[in-house]
Amino acid sequence: MTTRITPEETALVLIEYQNDFISPGGALHDGVKGEIDRTQMLAHTRDVVAKARQSGMKIVWSPILFAAGHPELGDAPYGVLGVVKGANAFLQGAWGGDQAEGFTPLPGDLVVSGKRGLCAFASTNLEFLLRHSGIRRVALGGFLTDCCVESTMRTAYEHGYDVVTLTDCVATLSRTQHDAAISYTFPMFSRPMTHQEFILESVS
Amino acid sequence: MTTRITPEETALVLIEYQNDFISPGGALHDGVKGEIDRTQMLAHTRDVVAKARQSGMKIVWSPILFAAGHPELGDAPYGVLGVVKGANAFLQGAWGGDQAEGFTPLPGDLVVSGKRGLCAFASTNLEFLLRHSGIRRVALGGFLTDCCVESTMRTAYEHGYDVVTLTDCVATLSRTQHDAAISYTFPMFSRPMTHQEFILESVS
Amino acid sequence: MTTRITPEETALVLIEYQNDFISPGGALHDGVKGEIDRTQMLAHTRDVVAKARQSGMKIVWSPILFAAGHPELGDAPYGVLGVVKGANAFLQGAWGGDQAEGFTPLPGDLVVSGKRGLCAFASTNLEFLLRHSGIRRVALGGFLTDCCVESTMRTAYEHGYDVVTLTDCVATLSRTQHDAAISYTFPMFSRPMTHQEFILESVS
Amino acid sequence: MTTRITPEETALVLIEYQNDFISPGGALHDGVKGEIDRTQMLAHTRDVVAKARQSGMKIVWSPILFAAGHPELGDAPYGVLGVVKGANAFLQGAWGGDQAEGFTPLPGDLVVSGKRGLCAFASTNLEFLLRHSGIRRVALGGFLTDCCVESTMRTAYEHGYDVVTLTDCVATLSRTQHDAAISYTFPMFSRPMTHQEFILESVS
Repeated sequence: MTTRITPEETALVLIEYQNDFISPGGALHDGVKGEIDRTQMLAHTRDVVAKARQSGMKIVWSPILFAAGHPELGDAPYGVLGVVKGANAFLQGAWGGDQAEGFTPLPGDLVVSGKRGLCAFASTNLEFLLRHSGIRRVALGGFLTDCCVESTMRTAYEHGYDVVTLTDCVATLSRTQHDAAISYTFPMFSRPMTHQEFILESVS
Repeated sequence: MTTRITPEETALVLIEYQNDFISPGGALHDGVKGEIDRTQMLAHTRDVVAKARQSGMKIVWSPILFAAGHPELGDAPYGVLGVVKGANAFLQGAWGGDQAEGFTPLPGDLVVSGKRGLCAFASTNLEFLLRHSGIRRVALGGFLTDCCVESTMRTAYEHGYDVVTLTDCVATLSRTQHDAAISYTFPMFSRPMTHQEFILESVS
Repeated sequence: MTTRITPEETALVLIEYQNDFISPGGALHDGVKGEIDRTQMLAHTRDVVAKARQSGMKIVWSPILFAAGHPELGDAPYGVLGVVKGANAFLQGAWGGDQAEGFTPLPGDLVVSGKRGLCAFASTNLEFLLRHSGIRRVALGGFLTDCCVESTMRTAYEHGYDVVTLTDCVATLSRTQHDAAISYTFPMFSRPMTHQEFILESVS
Repeated sequence: MTTRITPEETALVLIEYQNDFISPGGALHDGVKGEIDRTQMLAHTRDVVAKARQSGMKIVWSPILFAAGHPELGDAPYGVLGVVKGANAFLQGAWGGDQAEGFTPLPGDLVVSGKRGLCAFASTNLEFLLRHSGIRRVALGGFLTDCCVESTMRTAYEHGYDVVTLTDCVATLSRTQHDAAISYTFPMFSRPMTHQEFILESVS
């Protein structure tokens, strides 16, 4: 990238800030509760959203959602989508699938539609939205560090975006797993930094 | 394809059976009204849906939908998406974007999410849904013959599906335009046939 | 697009200027010979390539190529890929698949790899090349007006590029077919213009 | 997947068995040499290729290749592609980019074309080849466990394939890094198993 990227060409892509991950009682909350607390990633996310919005960046929310019974996943999903179906998680129109309090879109934000898999590009209109808004840099936060966030990072890098991973705005099931991703794979496919470093670099 | 494709491996993909195209008062209805009447494509679609459903095929509805103001399209869309925005068409949660009467999903049907462009694969979870359901053949109907239906046909062919275009279940702005697509490009990227020929071939 | 697009952000994408289409004796030459002559599209292409190169645009060549026996197409391809296999066309490493005289890459040009289908994006690294070079506008020429050029145009439009179709640098099997594409579908998915209009708009 | 997948519907996808990784003197060989030795992944790969070929599976080779100077990567690539360019690795037509001895395609194998990024689907015709050959299961081996192999695994899973990762046919820069991928992310997106378990399951 030879020319400077402006805040208007930057999108903050926020992955799965939904009750089933974030809120007590959520279908998958217990698995990530400890790491949410340890990393303080919710407070960091609120901070980066406020500052990014003020600077003119595009805020993009990317929920994962299924119809009742998860018919989108076929008869016998395996792997992580099997876990999602087994937990009956992320139902569209139900509390668990809703954006958690404090993480709901404002007018002017974009909301990704179609996400039934892990990568936020794979089954959605994210690429369409970013391209038609002239976005050249994406900064990623949300869940899980090494699952949906990482898949999205990998694809964004292949698509030629300048990819920032916000290392203090992501969480997964354990600290070991979280640290492995941030140490080993994040630097291959992105420029990892804290949310404060990101704001400093992008807005100043 | 060497093995016989079963009805369970076949999907009927129905593109934009929404009020803005089909119903009097719809934002783009006047442009297609004449061809809808001439081709009788609504009656043919109802017929093929009923028979396909009965045979065990997957019914897949693919609406195009936008937030108020069409923010997904950037500041100044050109071409056909500029026309869609100019007509204020296909708003999510409004009557114009709703599926038209007689063309609403039943339990067990799949509904494509994310469509903001023309090809039903390009910004959606259609491929994800088809693959996770084990689909190998797609049959296409809807609007417009040479726009969204044709883009979807072209992509489905590249993706290796056995593609059927239902020539009496599609319509566009004029007969000349409709006939040009069906004569010239449909046979390159699909096996064009009437809905009755399709049922005869697939179900018997 | 709010900011002006520079020649350095523009790519001329040239589809299938190979012996099997262009040169006497080519496997598919007889089908397009008449239209190549009528449209003078080869001379126009040479002209636009020279001027685009001089202005700093990226020149991108997109051949279609197969291994001997066309194993990439499965056992029994139908539609246009069946025709390609039937004609034994576009073999890699053979004369028919080679770029025709006058249409070979120079140092600094990019050559798309992987094309086995019709759309120049569908099975290739074209998107990767364009994105990693910072391209925002693509101008399209080559074969066939309503097959590979049109599929490429449709996908480029969905991907958010500013798409120009060079109406006097494309050819297909007949004038009727050519005119139908240029009249009906090109304006939906691109800004059609002659190569002279394109140079005037882009370079001045 | 409800029906049994046959060997003919299975592809062994072999990623970057090229001199620059495998052979002494290769541009990136020193970084992976220790893990190649420890895991014995080359011997395991030779074994699984022989048995897969015999059983009727499709063998698919996926090299990564660049023109001299790596023009495909833009001016200043960052992350892992910056490392590739910095090492001047994987040049097309040069020894480093060639398939290593013992890992060259035989007649009937398929060779993926276009790979300039990490995921074997992202800039290539892999999906086209798999779909047009009717493949439903992919088994993955090669380099690096947590880079190209992992990106390919993640995408194949989203595409609805039955994905097998051959845990004793992959290697990366260190054992810690290798084990982290196999423990944490491989089970999310695949069914990890040894090459012997794979042959037993698929062929018996």
